[in-house]
Amino acid sequence: MATEAVHRIGRDEVVWAFAPEMTPVLEVDPGATVTLETNDCFTGQIQSESDLVTEIDFQRVNSATGPIAVRGAEPGDSLVVELLAVRPAERGFATLIPGIGQLIDQVQAPVTQVFRVDGDTVHMTDRISFPLRPMLVVIGAATESETVFNGYAGQHGGNLDNHLHGPGSTVYMPVRQPGGMLAIGDMHASMGDGEVCFTGVEIAGEVTIRLGLLKGKQGTWPVTELADRWVVHGTAGPDFMEALDRAVEEGARFLVDQWGFTMEEAFVFLSVACDANICQACRPQEFSTIARVSIPKVSATPRPFA
Amino acid sequence: MATEAVHRIGRDEVVWAFAPEMTPVLEVDPGATVTLETNDCFTGQIQSESDLVTEIDFQRVNSATGPIAVRGAEPGDSLVVELLAVRPAERGFATLIPGIGQLIDQVQAPVTQVFRVDGDTVHMTDRISFPLRPMLVVIGAATESETVFNGYAGQHGGNLDNHLHGPGSTVYMPVRQPGGMLAIGDMHASMGDGEVCFTGVEIAGEVTIRLGLLKGKQGTWPVTELADRWVVHGTAGPDFMEALDRAVEEGARFLVDQWGFTMEEAFVFLSVACDANICQACRPQEFSTIARVSIPKVSATPRPFA
Repeated sequence: MATEAVHRIGRDEVVWAFAPEMTPVLEVDPGATVTLETNDCFTGQIQSESDLVTEIDFQRVNSATGPIAVRGAEPGDSLVVELLAVRPAERGFATLIPGIGQLIDQVQAPVTQVFRVDGDTVHMTDRISFPLRPMLVVIGAATESETVFNGYAGQHGGNLDNHLHGPGSTVYMPVRQPGGMLAIGDMHASMGDGEVCFTGVEIAGEVTIRLGLLKGKQGTWPVTELADRWVVHGTAGPDFMEALDRAVEEGARFLVDQWGFTMEEAFVFLSVACDANICQACRPQEFSTIARVSIPKVSATPRPFA
Repeated sequence: MATEAVHRIGRDEVVWAFAPEMTPVLEVDPGATVTLETNDCFTGQIQSESDLVTEIDFQRVNSATGPIAVRGAEPGDSLVVELLAVRPAERGFATLIPGIGQLIDQVQAPVTQVFRVDGDTVHMTDRISFPLRPMLVVIGAATESETVFNGYAGQHGGNLDNHLHGPGSTVYMPVRQPGGMLAIGDMHASMGDGEVCFTGVEIAGEVTIRLGLLKGKQGTWPVTELADRWVVHGTAGPDFMEALDRAVEEGARFLVDQWGFTMEEAFVFLSVACDANICQACRPQEFSTIARVSIPKVSATPRPFA
């Protein structure tokens, strides 16, 4: 009877930034399954509603567990990261941070809100609860040349803040350095598109992934597959509309380069059949803004990297 | 046997703008069901791929069928507009318009693209087809004081460009003048969020609505109910982020005023459980930008206007 290797990385094996040079804590063959323990974005510095975001060490936020090297991964390839299971802990936190978010001038801040996860439900107060929608904020790989802290997003992924990165999704991560050097962290039990107060339900947990390798094909940014669609990304600095422009351009590149659309067909198809939307557009956007475009799976869009 | 009155308004009974003073073409009691014939946004001026958007009369675009007065509707009320059925015609059109849209510098324009609707599928070319997703772009009522052409959106509704305004949705339309004066038009067989080339699959059709009346309650903008969520809107001029700010503020108003959240709870809940997204953010946004926030139906958000 064949025994599948079971890999596990603990939550102390983390990186705080993605860079060209990264030292793997694990090296696997394509096809490996790995369970990663992840810290909450505050790395445990917030434990109750009396722990305030203004009092924590911001050098220790947004950790990502890893990195993992995949044997044979070379620049130009994609790591195929299947999120098989996302298991949040029982308690999470959101914070209202002075100066940040669309409604910050209308509230008292700082505030720490504790949440309790019970099965498929997140409890906020005795009265307010809502469905669990677990996802991973930070998913990235070694960069081509920059060092990018995990609070930011870019072509290497990083803080993509895409709530669609939950169980059942597959992320095609561009390999820019040998091995790829994948790291994942910063789970949310739930997060709304836009993340208008700059936190979701920040929570520790475990994620189990299967790691594949696609040779010689990659997006400019990570590309995500769901059951019914492909999702491309665009990231920018403070101007969300620039992130949106880039995501639309990335969508057009796929439609033209991979699926044989003319540019005119691509532009029309994006407008009439594809949803351009927000991952992250929290005011005042001191960090990154992130847009996504969802391309439906239809016969003309069989697979990315066809 | 009781006979339900069946009302019908033809596609020649249209308005091109919403204003304080509007003359109804039909007056009904609350509970009435009405079928409205709607023109495509070009009012039939485009019939083939050789008809170009640069050659049409832009005084005759975005017609809305109506208006309908609802007896007893007074300022401060809401018309409750249930979209029971949305039936597009067999042929629709999209256009690439010189100077407009995220990718316009990368294409030859003008272009007219013809689509064929067959059952639940929209056929674009022999190779490219996608699911039907019918919706109504323009849904509005008499304004408080301005005259707003149907190409624009505002607190009265108008060109809301929300692809969620399809069959099964219910729009709570703020009444700002006696009778409300509802008009609806500009069907799309499909449209993506963002509408990045500034058209969807523009198509004529018929929509059947049931019209109710909610006394003494209204949103700042129209509020939409789906099976699983409430959807609030915010509109602005060229700056999409301003539209987003307003939609987030409108969401907070509902959570605080109607559902008893503190402002701090509302801000957190919007960030962790509600999706802030794009209806319309086409470059260069000479018209309106429109944002929406989806608030999930949970026990703490029982009904709007509770």
